[in-house]
Amino acid sequence: MDTTTDDNDIKQNRTVRVKNPHLLKNTVDHLYHISLSNTSDDLENRFGDVKFVCFGGTPSRMSKFTQFISSELGVKYYGDVGSPTNITGSTDRYAIYKAGPVLAVSHGIGIPSLSIVLQEVVKLVHYAKCQDVEFFRIGTSGGLGVEPGTVVVTEKVVNGALEPFHHSIVLGKSVKRPAVVDKEFAKEIYQFADISDKFQTVLGTTLCADDFYEGQGRIDGAFCEHDHDDKLNWLKHVHSQGVCNIEMESLGFITMCHRANVKGAVLCVTLLDRFKGDMVTMDHKFLTAVQKYPQIIVARYIKNAYHLLLKKG
Amino acid sequence: MDTTTDDNDIKQNRTVRVKNPHLLKNTVDHLYHISLSNTSDDLENRFGDVKFVCFGGTPSRMSKFTQFISSELGVKYYGDVGSPTNITGSTDRYAIYKAGPVLAVSHGIGIPSLSIVLQEVVKLVHYAKCQDVEFFRIGTSGGLGVEPGTVVVTEKVVNGALEPFHHSIVLGKSVKRPAVVDKEFAKEIYQFADISDKFQTVLGTTLCADDFYEGQGRIDGAFCEHDHDDKLNWLKHVHSQGVCNIEMESLGFITMCHRANVKGAVLCVTLLDRFKGDMVTMDHKFLTAVQKYPQIIVARYIKNAYHLLLKKG
Repeated sequence: MDTTTDDNDIKQNRTVRVKNPHLLKNTVDHLYHISLSNTSDDLENRFGDVKFVCFGGTPSRMSKFTQFISSELGVKYYGDVGSPTNITGSTDRYAIYKAGPVLAVSHGIGIPSLSIVLQEVVKLVHYAKCQDVEFFRIGTSGGLGVEPGTVVVTEKVVNGALEPFHHSIVLGKSVKRPAVVDKEFAKEIYQFADISDKFQTVLGTTLCADDFYEGQGRIDGAFCEHDHDDKLNWLKHVHSQGVCNIEMESLGFITMCHRANVKGAVLCVTLLDRFKGDMVTMDHKFLTAVQKYPQIIVARYIKNAYHLLLKKG
Repeated sequence: MDTTTDDNDIKQNRTVRVKNPHLLKNTVDHLYHISLSNTSDDLENRFGDVKFVCFGGTPSRMSKFTQFISSELGVKYYGDVGSPTNITGSTDRYAIYKAGPVLAVSHGIGIPSLSIVLQEVVKLVHYAKCQDVEFFRIGTSGGLGVEPGTVVVTEKVVNGALEPFHHSIVLGKSVKRPAVVDKEFAKEIYQFADISDKFQTVLGTTLCADDFYEGQGRIDGAFCEHDHDDKLNWLKHVHSQGVCNIEMESLGFITMCHRANVKGAVLCVTLLDRFKGDMVTMDHKFLTAVQKYPQIIVARYIKNAYHLLLKKG
């Protein structure tokens, strides 16, 4: 476990610090899945200005977000007009785009996929000596008792058993790590929702599952051993415990942000109300529109924070 | 749990059957993540000839495999010359390509990501009334005590605690499902390794982890609370239990193939020997070359099986 001394040390130092003493001894660190290296790439020069890292599921969504945030901040993105360049280059596992102080990163689906790119990005901003970096997950989810198209800002995150912990196995032993949401940060971002928005934004608990079908109680997967009533009873139960939405990455995201001592927030739009069905049937046009809702809130927050930073100099 | 009656019933019927009674009641099933539907797409006409489904991590690798298997079987792939068409179209979560009786599917990283596309592909081949379908995972892995570039055909798969089970949470309760490898099928495929191959092929146990760094004992992630000796002792221990390679999907793949009553095999090439380090430092050219090794073995198996099928008529 990290000691209090370590935590204080990190809080006093504004750069992102990896929590791994072994890395200090390694002179070469090849960030394999994002095709960058701390020795062959000039990370400080290329990424030292990064203040905001936004993670989302797919490369195309994060490319579009890069163009949107670039326009919002009035900064150029890296790449050709209409086509931000994927910095990870030859690998097609993940995509990373850059627009001024913002990195936009695709994380794929599920905690294992997210965990790799999140750790390599933590190492990247550490080597680049970035200061006061903030991480955001802007994603999609199933909703519970809220209108499809609602943005949920996560103020608590739980696993499928309603525990605020991420369980994993390290060196053959079970490890349980707390998923501690920075509630102040979540509330701060929530303030950027506007009464005139054509969508609703709520603060709520997010349930993170390891599967889209059985793991989320759905009865339309290839396998199912429970029935419609079992599902509804479970959905009612988790809803009574404050759960507003269900997705597949927030628990890992929040747990790792907390470990890295990086401010992290999760904003997901809901694509359906699970009380009314299992299938995402939203048409493509509406789907494209609603995926932008959490991006709109995060962009407002970033624009405000970036302008304050520029004023400070 | 599935009853023996169900299993017998499925074995007698050569089509792939989903194990979910609720699906029979649903007239419309939109396979959301692969953009196909059982009502708006003529699945039987488009996919009814599929006999072999090959899964791998990335879209580009599976596109290259599609071109390779198409040339090996002497069948055209769906798409333009040099550029197989991704059947999932507008979504960039997964890619599916088709060459005659072969589907090539990208599954991303980790069991949660794999589980979604594997379930939707099980439903696809079920609706398309495919018969005697076989699934393969052709991937990459870390090796243990074998030369980098070795192909491991999985004959047993275990989780990070060396258990041959996949644990998940369904409706708030822990569920433990057996990861039963079809050993006869693994041996059958292993026979297609050739003494003249420039790479070695072995049968062995595969350890499936939920993380690339701590979960595989690495000490070069963003977080690490163990040291070099702890890692080596763990690697020695799992190696003494027969583990030849470590990756992140096989446990889910094998468990779900077993549940779907589909023959499934896992073949992964090793990119490094973990006894010698944590970092993948193989150069790009060698990496591209070795990724083809498991594809070569699977292509030989498929070519032989396909020609036998054609002879039978």
